[in-house]
Amino acid sequence: MSDIEKIKAFFVDNDRFAGHNGIRLIEAALGRAVVEMDVQEYHLNGANVVHGGALFTLADFAFAIACNMQGRLSLAVSVTMNFVKAATKGTLRAVCEQVTDGKLATYRATITDDSGEIVATFQGLAFRKNEKLPVIDT
Amino acid sequence: MSDIEKIKAFFVDNDRFAGHNGIRLIEAALGRAVVEMDVQEYHLNGANVVHGGALFTLADFAFAIACNMQGRLSLAVSVTMNFVKAATKGTLRAVCEQVTDGKLATYRATITDDSGEIVATFQGLAFRKNEKLPVIDT
Amino acid sequence: MSDIEKIKAFFVDNDRFAGHNGIRLIEAALGRAVVEMDVQEYHLNGANVVHGGALFTLADFAFAIACNMQGRLSLAVSVTMNFVKAATKGTLRAVCEQVTDGKLATYRATITDDSGEIVATFQGLAFRKNEKLPVIDT
Amino acid sequence: MSDIEKIKAFFVDNDRFAGHNGIRLIEAALGRAVVEMDVQEYHLNGANVVHGGALFTLADFAFAIACNMQGRLSLAVSVTMNFVKAATKGTLRAVCEQVTDGKLATYRATITDDSGEIVATFQGLAFRKNEKLPVIDT
Repeated sequence: MSDIEKIKAFFVDNDRFAGHNGIRLIEAALGRAVVEMDVQEYHLNGANVVHGGALFTLADFAFAIACNMQGRLSLAVSVTMNFVKAATKGTLRAVCEQVTDGKLATYRATITDDSGEIVATFQGLAFRKNEKLPVIDT
Repeated sequence: MSDIEKIKAFFVDNDRFAGHNGIRLIEAALGRAVVEMDVQEYHLNGANVVHGGALFTLADFAFAIACNMQGRLSLAVSVTMNFVKAATKGTLRAVCEQVTDGKLATYRATITDDSGEIVATFQGLAFRKNEKLPVIDT
Repeated sequence: MSDIEKIKAFFVDNDRFAGHNGIRLIEAALGRAVVEMDVQEYHLNGANVVHGGALFTLADFAFAIACNMQGRLSLAVSVTMNFVKAATKGTLRAVCEQVTDGKLATYRATITDDSGEIVATFQGLAFRKNEKLPVIDT
Repeated sequence: MSDIEKIKAFFVDNDRFAGHNGIRLIEAALGRAVVEMDVQEYHLNGANVVHGGALFTLADFAFAIACNMQGRLSLAVSVTMNFVKAATKGTLRAVCEQVTDGKLATYRATITDDSGEIVATFQGLAFRKNEKLPVIDT
């Protein structure tokens, strides 16, 4: 198994909050990840639209994977999300891509719905720790 | 039932995402809300700490309640969250308070853990629509 | 003069803060603007690098132009900036592009230096008022 | 001269961008700073209100001082600003206070006008480097 495959499996197997909320990994590469979520009844808020927390979790999971693909433990330290359009059904997709690398690295993500329209935009700052992910040798 | 009691009940009964993730309303008043979440296994991410999405959802639920207490439908349009300290157990509490009112209104929230230490800070911008919450009579 | 030319001239002539700080408009189109600033002694902070406020002003001027190109008065309501790399000299360039349109519209900007490296990233939310820019006829 | 007095003098003497834009330090203590700016013609944008960049610079200068008061070089890495009310005249005041300390430290600032109304809110994340400010002896 390549490091990238190990890291993908690590996140799929161990991120219990993503699993609990029905989020699945679609693809991942160095500095990039794509995740999806089929909207379920339990994703909705009082206004009958997908909860901002569900949208945030979707984008944040893509962010976590994209920024940990180097194999070095990276943590989100600051994130801004703009909510653009209410989502109510179908499959939501978040694509996250690295903008700049470094001890502090920046990422942008966008969530789209089935019609390809943007539901939310996301900008994140990650802090890279010195330790490796537990799944990476040496 | 007063309007405030109706609005509280509305959020508790209808926010399915908050319910699905174990978040409960503690108190609410005009421009202010307090919510809590007991950390469970399903709140954790791959690094064995509470997922940023769970923290965001906690703060965002407090934000939703604080900004809808006027009875007029208000939506989050932009939120920034800073993650300060990893949380792993106990009860997390988010307190959200209005900073400025208006068509666009600003709020700040802080999440603390059992020791009273700050886990995350949150700043949100809400957009007030003209319609009332369904639970409010004219 | 086309509306786009009028709007460009309006911003160049009337944004006194951009002028006071040596920022010039390079190009503008619907939903997009490019501006530049030659680093001067007065742009520096106590650490001898370009002040965050100067970088913000550069990106914000690009943002203002990009989002007002429709001819309808648009105001920044929330902006997040990540500071990636210290800048000390040469010409800094900000490119701002619209991501989503609407009553609330989202934009992203990136500042680069002479080597093409990213100095800062910027995400902005604009609120479109009903009134037109003074320079636009009915 | 105490360290705090040295640090205050250092920022007043060396922040050329703050000086160029008429911003003055009013008071500073560990984790807190207050700065002011008298609105001048050159602070205005095309809409005849104080430019977002001027407001940002005001808050950011307070932030820089508040987070460097420990004597250890601290840099802004991520900042979010919400623009609440247009400002056109008088004296604007920014008060910045530390919310959490650490390698990454969080701050909040608020800008008010002569009537005490909030003009903008600001949330910043600072990264503390290992080096001391040049003005501090070992």
